[in-house]
Amino acid sequence: MQLRVTNLLVGSCRSFKVYHSTYSSKVSQKCSSLIYQSNGDPEKVVELIESTLSKPSKSEVMVRMLAATINPADMNMIQGIYPIKPPLPAVGGNEGVGEILMVGSDVKDFQVGDRVLSIIPGWGTWRTHANSRADQFIKISKDLPVVSAATLSVNPCTAYRMLKDFVKLEKGDVIIQNGANSAVGQAVIQIAAELQVRTINIVRNRPDLSKLVDHLNSLGATHVLTDDLLRSPEVKEILEDLPKPKLGLNTVGGKSAADLLKHMEAGSTLVTYGGMSKQPLMVPTGLLIFNDVKLSGFWMSRWTAENMRSQEQRNMIQWLTDLVMAGKLKPPKHEVISFSEFKMGIHKTMQPFTGKKQILLMNGLDGSAVDPSSEKSDPPKT
Amino acid sequence: MQLRVTNLLVGSCRSFKVYHSTYSSKVSQKCSSLIYQSNGDPEKVVELIESTLSKPSKSEVMVRMLAATINPADMNMIQGIYPIKPPLPAVGGNEGVGEILMVGSDVKDFQVGDRVLSIIPGWGTWRTHANSRADQFIKISKDLPVVSAATLSVNPCTAYRMLKDFVKLEKGDVIIQNGANSAVGQAVIQIAAELQVRTINIVRNRPDLSKLVDHLNSLGATHVLTDDLLRSPEVKEILEDLPKPKLGLNTVGGKSAADLLKHMEAGSTLVTYGGMSKQPLMVPTGLLIFNDVKLSGFWMSRWTAENMRSQEQRNMIQWLTDLVMAGKLKPPKHEVISFSEFKMGIHKTMQPFTGKKQILLMNGLDGSAVDPSSEKSDPPKT
Repeated sequence: MQLRVTNLLVGSCRSFKVYHSTYSSKVSQKCSSLIYQSNGDPEKVVELIESTLSKPSKSEVMVRMLAATINPADMNMIQGIYPIKPPLPAVGGNEGVGEILMVGSDVKDFQVGDRVLSIIPGWGTWRTHANSRADQFIKISKDLPVVSAATLSVNPCTAYRMLKDFVKLEKGDVIIQNGANSAVGQAVIQIAAELQVRTINIVRNRPDLSKLVDHLNSLGATHVLTDDLLRSPEVKEILEDLPKPKLGLNTVGGKSAADLLKHMEAGSTLVTYGGMSKQPLMVPTGLLIFNDVKLSGFWMSRWTAENMRSQEQRNMIQWLTDLVMAGKLKPPKHEVISFSEFKMGIHKTMQPFTGKKQILLMNGLDGSAVDPSSEKSDPPKT
Repeated sequence: MQLRVTNLLVGSCRSFKVYHSTYSSKVSQKCSSLIYQSNGDPEKVVELIESTLSKPSKSEVMVRMLAATINPADMNMIQGIYPIKPPLPAVGGNEGVGEILMVGSDVKDFQVGDRVLSIIPGWGTWRTHANSRADQFIKISKDLPVVSAATLSVNPCTAYRMLKDFVKLEKGDVIIQNGANSAVGQAVIQIAAELQVRTINIVRNRPDLSKLVDHLNSLGATHVLTDDLLRSPEVKEILEDLPKPKLGLNTVGGKSAADLLKHMEAGSTLVTYGGMSKQPLMVPTGLLIFNDVKLSGFWMSRWTAENMRSQEQRNMIQWLTDLVMAGKLKPPKHEVISFSEFKMGIHKTMQPFTGKKQILLMNGLDGSAVDPSSEKSDPPKT
């Protein structure tokens, strides 16, 4: 699929010099950006550049970015192996939260001080400031902790849509997922728990398994099983009291997809959103024909491109915000690092199975502060 | 899936003795059946038994079977590895055409002389006569040649439904299928041609390839390609003038399924109805996520069970009958054998890649004749 990709640097800080030579402006906002001028190894091609921003045009807002994630998909985009290929040079990053610093004279939807998420796949979030068209943002509550806001638009939205758009789930229904400890997997557990949908969560065996099981149980998991246990005869007894899953969520591929399908209800749907094993899904023919299982894929970028500024998108963001504020949707395990530590963040994200999402905090780069306390505490309990 | 399975021998010829001792009747119809008393190797467990039928009850008809196919699925059912497991002993066969010899007093829908197909998955067609509930049959035109009628209810119906039920196909659209020389594949080519839908047909390389290509082209294939050619760079040039397929039909599995998916349009659907390679489908993760391909299965027995005696079922049979009568839907390559040669028919069906469907002709077993000329000539041209 070829998604519409914004020209990342038009209106961004890097193109300031051109703007500045054409228009006179009293505004002179310093700006730092992490850009790549060619596709390649993210540890080599990403560089920090400094520039200056003029004031936004009539239809634009100036956004100060507060925090942005470094996601594996960002790495693939920089490598040039992702289906979205922003024109080069491009600013890295697809997820993050910003604050409106200035609004153009034609902009009605935003005010100075509003917090916003970019809703354009491929919009570079790894920068301290940007001038961009106002319709490229969606407003979110200022009450949301910065880390929760910065990690909201990809993983929790992916989990939400997969639970909403493929199978009609009702209270008491069951879903099954592999890679249950991924950021999406953890969001799935928490959102499903809120919907009173039960979850069978498959993880790989590991030395600190009991700690992981405790963590997922604390998020609301119904069962946490290793893939070995899922393949063993004992699993029958463990799952005998549950209805068969109506929905499966696959981010592993290979034989793990078949393992999920074998436990799923007739007529159910397996949705694939990742391929951690780097193996194609193995799908037994008999399950397709005789058990009528269906397979689909889900890609948040496509959904966002197709539902830009829709009521459904606003509803989703509001629902997830409410869940965060109620203390029922925690951000994934993460490390907050400063913008200048980006090389370390990229390095850690490139390692297989890092377990912690790297979050760039723009705090301090322009002299203003983001309250770091909101990052380190759990969301407030209700 | 557990389908409702008729008790095959209630009302069939084998249960006559019970009936006969209870009811007096002037009717005494000799009956031969191919039954199996236990699951196992079809060449060993299938036996010919002789019995006598009383007259049908009020809600029944007596059917004289004219011809029945020996299909690979029948073998799996006898082996006990098919999802439909008729209670034993059972009469073999799932497809065939019969003629109404007598009607019970309550039966309104049929008259003596009507030609009928059984619409009950698992109803044993390998017998010369049966008394069965009238609602287990659907009427077909007497003008249909016996071989076309006997081979209508599984393969052409499978092809028809797969072309109708998954993707909205319009004139000029393209589909792709593997195993294109299978009985279903040949029906797909002919039905698609009638719908003005273009077909890319994938077959394995073989010594007599050009003969096969000529045959499939004569049925209306747009392209016939070997699986090797489909994987080669040259295929791009061959297919460049065609839109990408909206629908794929898979009866092979393994890597062949991935080969089809790679050539399909974004958002398209691959329907699996067989697994000749005995390998699970290999489905690349990226095609699911980024190209939004969807996978489903199709099983004619399920459709029939869920659409028993529906208007849609009648429409389909009528449409296919019209296509046969217009000379546009030929039966698959076949050998007509007499009922008494069933062991040879089973043996040939058990061989891999036999290439010819075995059709049992009940002709002569009860002294009445089925015109064999209708079997050997092509359907009439319009």
